Amino acid sequence: MKFTINRASFTQQINHVQRAIPTKTTIDILYGIKLTANSEGLTLIGSDADISILSLIAADDSMADLVIEEEGEVVLPARLLNDIIKKLPADEVSVSVNERHVATIRSAKAEFQIAGKDGNQYPRLPEIDATTEIQLPTLAFKNLINQTIFAASNQESRPILTGLHLTLEEGYINAVATDSHRLSQRQIPLELSDQQKVFQALTIPKKTMNELSRIVPDEAQLTLTVSNQQIIFHFDAITIYSRLLEGNYPATDRLIPESSETDLVVNSLDFLQAIERASLMAHEGKNNIVQLDLQNNQAELSVTGNEIGNVAEMIDYESLTGPGLKISFNPDYMKEALRSFGDCSIRLQFNSPVRPMLLSRLEVSEVPHNELIQLLTPVRTH
Amino acid sequence: MKFTINRASFTQQINHVQRAIPTKTTIDILYGIKLTANSEGLTLIGSDADISILSLIAADDSMADLVIEEEGEVVLPARLLNDIIKKLPADEVSVSVNERHVATIRSAKAEFQIAGKDGNQYPRLPEIDATTEIQLPTLAFKNLINQTIFAASNQESRPILTGLHLTLEEGYINAVATDSHRLSQRQIPLELSDQQKVFQALTIPKKTMNELSRIVPDEAQLTLTVSNQQIIFHFDAITIYSRLLEGNYPATDRLIPESSETDLVVNSLDFLQAIERASLMAHEGKNNIVQLDLQNNQAELSVTGNEIGNVAEMIDYESLTGPGLKISFNPDYMKEALRSFGDCSIRLQFNSPVRPMLLSRLEVSEVPHNELIQLLTPVRTH
Repeated sequence: MKFTINRASFTQQINHVQRAIPTKTTIDILYGIKLTANSEGLTLIGSDADISILSLIAADDSMADLVIEEEGEVVLPARLLNDIIKKLPADEVSVSVNERHVATIRSAKAEFQIAGKDGNQYPRLPEIDATTEIQLPTLAFKNLINQTIFAASNQESRPILTGLHLTLEEGYINAVATDSHRLSQRQIPLELSDQQKVFQALTIPKKTMNELSRIVPDEAQLTLTVSNQQIIFHFDAITIYSRLLEGNYPATDRLIPESSETDLVVNSLDFLQAIERASLMAHEGKNNIVQLDLQNNQAELSVTGNEIGNVAEMIDYESLTGPGLKISFNPDYMKEALRSFGDCSIRLQFNSPVRPMLLSRLEVSEVPHNELIQLLTPVRTH
Repeated sequence: MKFTINRASFTQQINHVQRAIPTKTTIDILYGIKLTANSEGLTLIGSDADISILSLIAADDSMADLVIEEEGEVVLPARLLNDIIKKLPADEVSVSVNERHVATIRSAKAEFQIAGKDGNQYPRLPEIDATTEIQLPTLAFKNLINQTIFAASNQESRPILTGLHLTLEEGYINAVATDSHRLSQRQIPLELSDQQKVFQALTIPKKTMNELSRIVPDEAQLTLTVSNQQIIFHFDAITIYSRLLEGNYPATDRLIPESSETDLVVNSLDFLQAIERASLMAHEGKNNIVQLDLQNNQAELSVTGNEIGNVAEMIDYESLTGPGLKISFNPDYMKEALRSFGDCSIRLQFNSPVRPMLLSRLEVSEVPHNELIQLLTPVRTH
């Protein structure tokens, strides 16, 4: 195996696939990046067995100055490869690999030799047998991820809750994440024909969604397909393969209240800042609870009962209707829910101190099925 | 105690004194900042018992909008105070403290109560009995710190080596730091009269020098005095008190070779980058050693004998004279030494593979006593 390449292109490609490399694994070869040089070009793969990221520099990519002199494959240690390529002295890099899988990397007068592994020993990527792929609205789909994924669980005790649950509905995608204390639900419009419906419902691991959202440029053409228990995202020269989470996702529809007794409308940013102040004291206490007290046309946030001190703040609101109510909640969950709305007027809907609060944008979108809601379970204090 | 103040001024002052606050201490009150309001203005003190930082907002400081309604003192938890003041909603902050040392902090509609401690229980700062202070050239003195302090030891087994050793000589200050593997020495010109020589030689803790270099603005008027086993730096409205390290600092003059056999002149930045590349492989090995091989008009850096791989690089040099030589060293020490020179031509002087290397600027300063040298002990490989 032997090729020369432009250093900046190579570094960029390494950075993409390195996102899949595990920090800890029992499968030693996964600490490496697999490089394959063939007539198509130079392919790099990084994987943690759950997610694999593949990046191809095509043979005819004019930016990359890629010249393949000898085809072949090898697995090289990811972190070391990245560090070396980043620090090489010249723009041109040459890589050649001998039959003992030792790679020689040259740039100007610097020459590195690093011990690699046989490319044949690297786990195979799943074959894609599906031919139908869905074109996603890239920016809207990235928003959908970022506005929901934080509510997915980090607890492996219920693995299905650690993912983002997607369903293809008539005219839209519905995404739900919940850790059973809070729930995020986002819909984005998407018209599909019957044969394009490559799945009905599936649950994708949190890490996959986070990595996807980080590496897809807003302007890229993003497609999705499902094949062999894998979900596959493709954009530019990059393909992300991910396993799906198995199991039944809980029915979350019935959790979302359809009416409310008390309604509070506030600016999301102003309210967020007040919650951030209150959380400073909540974090000093044992329970990490903030109380919201709505009555007599006043909305007061407070934290009391801590040894170190208390805080109280009257909240500016746009409207407050319905019976008075005192409700307590985890301020960190509230902060994440509020941030997902950006800067706008939001409605908080309450039914009782022990039933979930519903947060939604005050202004309803002109486009149907373009909705974001956040549900937060209160903390019972008696 | 009761005052109002501009939030930005208060935050800035808290940030300065907070640098002295320990992350871990057995003296509980040192987690706090002492606030004193009196006719002079508002004084804040943070301390870890070794270093104390005092910041005064004068009563007549027009930027701070300080109004003292009632004099007094209190100790408030530093981190919490900082977090609260940073996040307050309005520009104006009012603080009032009751007889149980509970502080009420108000800004717009937010009101915090935090439990403080009696200011009387806070350790006293040493009285300054000296009247003579030295005016330091601020920028040169900051450079002096940054170009030497990294060579001071982190090992408490020889406490005296954890400091920067300063001597006042005829027409200059001399600063030395060494951990016994390497040594940095910097001189800066300074003319003093006999009565201004407030010390002959003293050793200042590394942390003090680092904090001083971080918080003194380049354009500030910096003064130094010594009193009661303390060194005291003063600039703007800030005073830093530090204990001195006790013990005899080793005589380092005799360590610096006066002649050399082999001389190599290189650009400091180019050589640094080559060392950074070589160190990537050195870090993979057990010994963290780079070899420099000077012979036949060639200078080669290399790392060999690692399981994971090797590196070799021919170095571009400006001149190479004297007998051939192979010498091994710790690349991390070499990197820090090289960085201290910035971007310039430097001379590396060698006597033998087991004697220290001397690094100095090729161009001698026009000003006398304005010199930086770095000494590096080689690693014996046989």
